[in-house]
Amino acid sequence: MPQIIQPRILKGFRDFLPEQEIPRAVLIEKLTKTFRGFGFVPIDTPALEYSEILLRKSGGETEKQVFRFNDNGGRDVALRFDLTVPFARFVAEHKDEIYFPFKRYHIAKVWRGEKPQAGRYREFIQCDFDTVGADTSGSDFEILSMIKAAFDEIGVPGITVKISHRGVFNRFLERLSLLDKSEEILRLTDKVLKISREELETQMDGLTNSNEKTKAVLSYIESARSASPKDFEKTLEKMEEAAGGPASDTKRLREIYECIKAEGIQDSFVLDPSITRGLDYYTGIVYETFLNELPSIGSVCSGGRYDNLTGLYMKGEISGVGASIGLDRLIAALEQTGNNKKTPGFTEAVVFCSENDKTSDRYKVAGILRKKNICCEVFPEQKKQGFQYTWAEKKGIPWGIFSIGESKCILKNLGTRETFENITVEEAAEIIGKKRN
Amino acid sequence: MPQIIQPRILKGFRDFLPEQEIPRAVLIEKLTKTFRGFGFVPIDTPALEYSEILLRKSGGETEKQVFRFNDNGGRDVALRFDLTVPFARFVAEHKDEIYFPFKRYHIAKVWRGEKPQAGRYREFIQCDFDTVGADTSGSDFEILSMIKAAFDEIGVPGITVKISHRGVFNRFLERLSLLDKSEEILRLTDKVLKISREELETQMDGLTNSNEKTKAVLSYIESARSASPKDFEKTLEKMEEAAGGPASDTKRLREIYECIKAEGIQDSFVLDPSITRGLDYYTGIVYETFLNELPSIGSVCSGGRYDNLTGLYMKGEISGVGASIGLDRLIAALEQTGNNKKTPGFTEAVVFCSENDKTSDRYKVAGILRKKNICCEVFPEQKKQGFQYTWAEKKGIPWGIFSIGESKCILKNLGTRETFENITVEEAAEIIGKKRN
Repeated sequence: MPQIIQPRILKGFRDFLPEQEIPRAVLIEKLTKTFRGFGFVPIDTPALEYSEILLRKSGGETEKQVFRFNDNGGRDVALRFDLTVPFARFVAEHKDEIYFPFKRYHIAKVWRGEKPQAGRYREFIQCDFDTVGADTSGSDFEILSMIKAAFDEIGVPGITVKISHRGVFNRFLERLSLLDKSEEILRLTDKVLKISREELETQMDGLTNSNEKTKAVLSYIESARSASPKDFEKTLEKMEEAAGGPASDTKRLREIYECIKAEGIQDSFVLDPSITRGLDYYTGIVYETFLNELPSIGSVCSGGRYDNLTGLYMKGEISGVGASIGLDRLIAALEQTGNNKKTPGFTEAVVFCSENDKTSDRYKVAGILRKKNICCEVFPEQKKQGFQYTWAEKKGIPWGIFSIGESKCILKNLGTRETFENITVEEAAEIIGKKRN
Repeated sequence: MPQIIQPRILKGFRDFLPEQEIPRAVLIEKLTKTFRGFGFVPIDTPALEYSEILLRKSGGETEKQVFRFNDNGGRDVALRFDLTVPFARFVAEHKDEIYFPFKRYHIAKVWRGEKPQAGRYREFIQCDFDTVGADTSGSDFEILSMIKAAFDEIGVPGITVKISHRGVFNRFLERLSLLDKSEEILRLTDKVLKISREELETQMDGLTNSNEKTKAVLSYIESARSASPKDFEKTLEKMEEAAGGPASDTKRLREIYECIKAEGIQDSFVLDPSITRGLDYYTGIVYETFLNELPSIGSVCSGGRYDNLTGLYMKGEISGVGASIGLDRLIAALEQTGNNKKTPGFTEAVVFCSENDKTSDRYKVAGILRKKNICCEVFPEQKKQGFQYTWAEKKGIPWGIFSIGESKCILKNLGTRETFENITVEEAAEIIGKKRN
């Protein structure tokens, strides 16, 4: 007999037991339903790619975190660490096969060798959705509208999507002759909620070399600190003024807001100039999404418009707009706010096993119920009734059945203990169906 | 400007464009629906595990194929190459958290560095379903019944599940004093359809050292060569006789067949003693599933009962029964038999963009249709009508809409060109819904 080896998994990785995997699967189904409703289609890419493809643009931090190795053929390969880089490669590689404007969603695992800590894992599911090949206010709005629809579908009572625009911010910085510092200023702005006002001012002074300019930048960023959805247009005017007057960027924001109002979802959208999304990748609208019940967990869905998705892999620029949901953070948030309904399983009825039953009768009864669209399972062996009841309870099954031959049964509500004696299986199906609704 | 890098993926890996990913997603949804209907629950395990966990039992062949490397922390890790080994580790690790009998399904990617060839990939999706912790005829039958239900749900017109039993075969070999050669004989038997009768006999002689015994083995294997579902009981009698008379194994087969008949699905099941499933892992019933329209592609769903799932990772044996579908082979088969309906997308209607439209009106119209459960997308920019029509056709969208303000529209059947002028969006929704059914 071989020696027993301790079963264990790698640090930062997780098993998903049914009570964790079911809510995750249900969440993914709701997102999928929403995306399909908007005409977005799924794609898939390999988990493993050439390192030179995946790591071309990333800085040192990503490179340290990636799972990278030489495969048996000596190729330098890596596990994907996000879905954006593979998507850029995908669009460049298949540009002649896909139809632009191309709207896709991709829900899949990614891997990062980050230091494991609370809420940080080395394997997690990312959910990305983008429209590429169209640079219009409608495409921008559609992503925002889809974010709202997705969180409605999930059953989140309220979200706030904080919107800003990189173009407006850049125009503003240009007026202050700070455009060459834009990347650093963006990164610092991104920290606005994480560091003290004093620290922010000191660090900003270091970038602007002028306390006057620092005050102007901070005033711009903070002009919407108390912003509410009602202030959208007022904030837009302020931003526009700071940037030097109307231009295509502020026109775009106005058109987007018109669509938001027409859809009647303006209560979920705030214009907030402090939103910048650290990366220099974005060029147009940018946004972050917060749960009204738990804003402190941070953005659960972020994104924006970018000018040049595929620049590393092909000539010619392809513009796009999209967003990304970190599924695991969202699930953690939904658990905290109690918006993640416990779904221990899908089974509605279990056919119990008692001593005098015929095996084939029990499975026949389950089969009839299934034909009536009732999720039904059979307890597969003779165990004490108490054991079978406890098992059903742990699996969250609401109804128990004892077969009487292959067409009649006793039906029992396992919660209330209400019992229906000697009824046909069809009658049982009807009772279960009625109580479901 | 950085140098452009040729977009490409690794040999043996694949991108899934929407026209490939949609049928795969739809197939997975149908399987999921079936499994849930039987009370099976989903789990997930990490893609990456300790090599010592994954490779403990496997022979040299697997070890050569696995993607194995040292991670940044110096750990010897590997990508999972199947879902069985991780499941064994999972059950051993979580035996106190899960409820036995435990019925789970797991549909996920696995990786093998096999030589790429037609139909063989280095990344593919495996679909496993098992009941562990119950050793009854009911559990055995349930997996068979679920296989039948799954292929019905997928829309395959006919399958033949070929069943045999390892216990019966072993009893038969014992009578011939060949039990110590059982593993080699099983492997050779598994090749029965792949090599010539002569070659088979020669190789079998090499194992049995007796042409008389060889003839007995071949006669046993071939007793069902012309088997049809009607011969199930007759073949069972022959097998029983060859094995030395009735025992728990033949009793089990009879009970399973009783359930099959009660369910009325006996036309899909054949008893075939040549089915052995090469691996020594199996101990009870074994089966392979063939598409009646394309048996030559081989088994698309195989499995059986095993006595000791978790032996490498814990003391105490846990018995189980299950099956595995190779999703990619199945999809290839469905394409060949024309049973994989082309689903270019889910979109039912597209709101076209014309010059005088208001952007917000177009999105408003789409939003109203979506509330009526119609998958609807908006063409996001002003392009020539011909371009928009071609785009809709390529995406397989059946209806086109032009908005007239935010509540009225022109509806056009893009196939027949039938047009409904100046109707309300609600009326359009009704027409689309009616034509759908």
